[in-house]
Order: sequence, then structure tokens, then C-alpha cells
Amino acid sequence: MNTSEYTSQYAEYVAQLDQQLKTNCEQLFLKHSIVAQAAQYSLLNGGKRVRGVLTLSVSEMLGGDPKVAAALGASVEMLHCYSLIHDDLPCMDDADLRRGKPACHKQYGEANALLAGDALLTAAFAALAAAPASDSQKAQAMELLAHGAGAQGMVYGQELDLAFENRTPSRQDLLQIHQHKTGALIKTAVLFGAVAAEQLEQVRSPLSGYADKLGLVFQIVDDVLDVTASAEQLGKPVGNDAADGKITFATLEGVESCRAQCSALTEQACLDLQKQFGVRADFLVQLAQTLCGRSF
Amino acid sequence: MNTSEYTSQYAEYVAQLDQQLKTNCEQLFLKHSIVAQAAQYSLLNGGKRVRGVLTLSVSEMLGGDPKVAAALGASVEMLHCYSLIHDDLPCMDDADLRRGKPACHKQYGEANALLAGDALLTAAFAALAAAPASDSQKAQAMELLAHGAGAQGMVYGQELDLAFENRTPSRQDLLQIHQHKTGALIKTAVLFGAVAAEQLEQVRSPLSGYADKLGLVFQIVDDVLDVTASAEQLGKPVGNDAADGKITFATLEGVESCRAQCSALTEQACLDLQKQFGVRADFLVQLAQTLCGRSF
Repeated sequence: MNTSEYTSQYAEYVAQLDQQLKTNCEQLFLKHSIVAQAAQYSLLNGGKRVRGVLTLSVSEMLGGDPKVAAALGASVEMLHCYSLIHDDLPCMDDADLRRGKPACHKQYGEANALLAGDALLTAAFAALAAAPASDSQKAQAMELLAHGAGAQGMVYGQELDLAFENRTPSRQDLLQIHQHKTGALIKTAVLFGAVAAEQLEQVRSPLSGYADKLGLVFQIVDDVLDVTASAEQLGKPVGNDAADGKITFATLEGVESCRAQCSALTEQACLDLQKQFGVRADFLVQLAQTLCGRSF
Repeated sequence: MNTSEYTSQYAEYVAQLDQQLKTNCEQLFLKHSIVAQAAQYSLLNGGKRVRGVLTLSVSEMLGGDPKVAAALGASVEMLHCYSLIHDDLPCMDDADLRRGKPACHKQYGEANALLAGDALLTAAFAALAAAPASDSQKAQAMELLAHGAGAQGMVYGQELDLAFENRTPSRQDLLQIHQHKTGALIKTAVLFGAVAAEQLEQVRSPLSGYADKLGLVFQIVDDVLDVTASAEQLGKPVGNDAADGKITFATLEGVESCRAQCSALTEQACLDLQKQFGVRADFLVQLAQTLCGRSF
């Protein structure tokens, strides 16, 4: 798969997700609700949709139903969006900007942003319930999403992240934080593709390996970009971590070491996937390589 | 069913729910997590468990599986608890006390309380996923919970409640607020009993009628008690509504009119239920009458 094929396939997945997200908003939100507007402000803002794209591409690799995959992928994007809104709140990261625009609470006030996050988290499960899927698929997806997003997954990662604002994390601590804060939901997104293809049990292990490595690379690249990229490139202020005295992979181990680790992790993730799925893994291989390449 | 039988049956339901909630916490939360501690502080504090009791008693009336009912009832209690934690936050009601103890954010700080609410909301769905139920029951329960708790249900009620802090609601507005803020989740709790008994479609209509009336009485009684009860009786400050200049059923229509409305609604709810389910409805009839009696 060449770069242009990859790019156009990625854009196609994003278009499917954006369409599904709009449909979900029409079905799950009330037109005149300000909380619904706040939720849509954050949700329908042209994000990269990496998580949803993972669901769609894994499902396609395994021959899954694209409509089920779109429903599941949109659900994980709604869940992700809630986490960003709550993470930006004054009592958390107190961030003013998100994707180049005022954060949700800056635009709509704190109470509406809190409720918009609550609404999106709840709507992520409503979207699963409304998916054109079997009850078995819905039950599997609910279990994966609640586990990846919950008190042993993403929420625990946010707790760890807060805890280390006041003490210095080791490499092991950083791995713990990111495995939960970013990795758990990325794994859910990848396994959602297997649910859409009704092959969760058969491919859970190889897909989890890919997701774990991808999730870690995802976070390390983020840390590196905070050091090396411009605010314009990222759509949010850079140098935040260093300015806050925050220890990241980039500040702890240096940009060069981070890049080497990302390359090694990506290579291993891709080799494993190709061994299992052959050329059908092409898109996911390219996605991992593109993600890693962002750090260079 | 005499009062003593009712009281002892109610206590038995609460014991089952508390046991299930403890088990859920052990399975869904990490021991050393401060967010988990904050969640359990709010969850395991001896609440009345009205919603969970509704699930258990409806299920028993319909011959449902008590284990499934306990799992579903615990889920709705976790969902309810999250809503209280977020509702008490400074950007919402800014309440210092809840059930006679410091509100979650007063005890654990705002960030941990926010995350504890997020964790409980997510865990409510994890609890459904882990229920000893069929996939069909899980899918039905997910749909009901996400709908009752979401942007067209409870969250919308919270939005309406906030919106009327700055303008005077009419009776129709108050009905709208409470139908969403309190009523939607009470209806979910009642219908969860039908899910546990695998009879949702057959009894949805009569049970919804009961739940709607009960939910409204529930809220009117709350408003009346804010005027007539002591802080000691309620475990939270009273007279809040009047002090805040907040319009409630009690301030809008007077305590006597509220009591008359509650009696009429309760009588109708009970008659309808007895017509449909005969003596099997005894517990639910007594529950509605007891709830109404709190206002006298």
C-alpha cells in the first residue's frame, strides 16, 4: 500500500466516522440543548479519529460488517471526546485550548462542559446499544469499552497522571500511566474491530500486542512533539510539559532515545501483525509507521 | 403486606444491593486507587437504595432471577451515585454535605471527585456487562440505562435545573425538569426489573405508568421536605431551595397542594398496578404509599 492509497483510505474511514457521529448526535442529543451543543462543539471538530480508524481498519482486515464497525468506532470516539473535555477542566489540566480552539469549558462554561462530558460518556454506550449488531456483539463491546475507559483503565491513568504532578515518575511509572491513560482505550478501539468481525476470541492476543505497542508509541510521540513541534503544527500550546516541570519520556530519556524506542516498537508491532495477517495488515502497518514518523 | 413485613422485605433488598455493590467495587476498582476510595466513600454510605429496591421488587413480582436483578439494581445505584457526586461539584450545586457527610469533593478534592463520578458512571455499564444475564438482557439493560441517564434523560434534567436558576419556572417547566432529572432513572430502575424477568416488552407500558407517577411523587416529596423537615431528618441542610430563591413545587403551589397531588398520584399508580398484577404488586404499592407518606 503506497502513501497515497493509505492517505485516501484513511480519509475514507474518517468520512465514515464523521457521518456516523453526526447521525449519533441527531439521534442521541436534543436540538435545543446547550449541553448537546457543547458536546457537538468538541466532538465534530475534525479530530484525527485515530481510535475510530483503528476499529474500522481492523474490522475490514478481518472481513467485518462496515456498518457495525462504524457504530463501534463512533462510540469509542465519543468516549475519547468526553475524556478530553473532562481532562481540560480547571480542576484537572486546566487547559484553555484543544485542537486550536477554546476548550469546551472556555466556550460553554464549566457546568455545561462537565455535563457535555457526562452526556458523551453515556452516549458512547447508547451508540453501542443502537448499533446494527447482534446482542452478543453489543455485550462484548460494552464489556470492552467499560473496562478500557473505567477505573482500571483510562480513569486510573488520569489518576496516575495527576498523582505524578507532585513527584517525579520513573520510566516504569510513565509506562504505567500511559498504558492506562492512552493505551487502554486504544486497545478497546482495536478489539472493537474484532467484535465487528465476530472474531474477538480468535484474534484477541495478536491484536492486543499490536495495540499495546501502538499505544505506547502514540504517547511517546506526543511527548516528543511537545518538545520539538510548533504550536501551529499541533493546534495547542507546546512546551507545556517542560514549562510545568512535567517529566515525560522526552524529558526523562531525551528525544533521540524516544525516537529509537518508537522505531523499535513500531517495527516489532508491524512484524507481528504481518506474520499473523499477511498483506491484509497493510493498512495497520502503514498506520503504525505513519504515527511513528510524526516524531521525526 | 403489613408495615413490618414491608420494612423487613425492604431491608432484605437493601442488604442484597449493598452486598452486590461491595462485590462490584472489589471487582471493578483497584485497592490502592484514591479515586476508587472516593467512589466507594460515596457509594457505600448507607443510602436508601430506592432505585435498586425498585429493580429487585419488580423483578420478584415478575418471577425474575434475583441474581440478575441484584446486578442490574447495583448498576443503577452506581449510576445514581455518580450523578450525585457530579451534581455536588462547585460548578454545579456546590453542595458541602451529602447524606450527613462531607460531599465527595469536600473529602477527596475536586479532581478525584470528578474522576470518581466518571469511574462510577463507567462502572455502572461494566456491572451490566458482568451480570449473570443473557446477552439479550445485557443489550436491553445497556439501552435503558444509557437512555435514562443520558442527554435525553437525567443529564438533560440537570441542564434544565441549571437553566432555571436564573429564571422562574412554571409548573410545566418543573414537570419537565423532574421528569428528566429524577424520573428517567427511576423508570430505568423499574424497567430493569422487567429485564431481569425477561418480560420487558410485555410489561413496559404499565410499569412505565407506575414509574412516571412514582418519580414525580418522589421529587415533590423532596421539595416538601426541604420546607418542612429538619436537617437532622434529612442528613443535609434544609430550606436550601427557599434560601436560594429556588422555585419548587412546594414554593410554587404550597405544601398542602403538593401533598394532595402526591396522594392522588400515588393512589392512581397503585390502582393501576394492582389491576395489572394483583397481590403480587403488594410491595410496590406499599413502597409508593410509604414514599408519599414521608411528606406528611
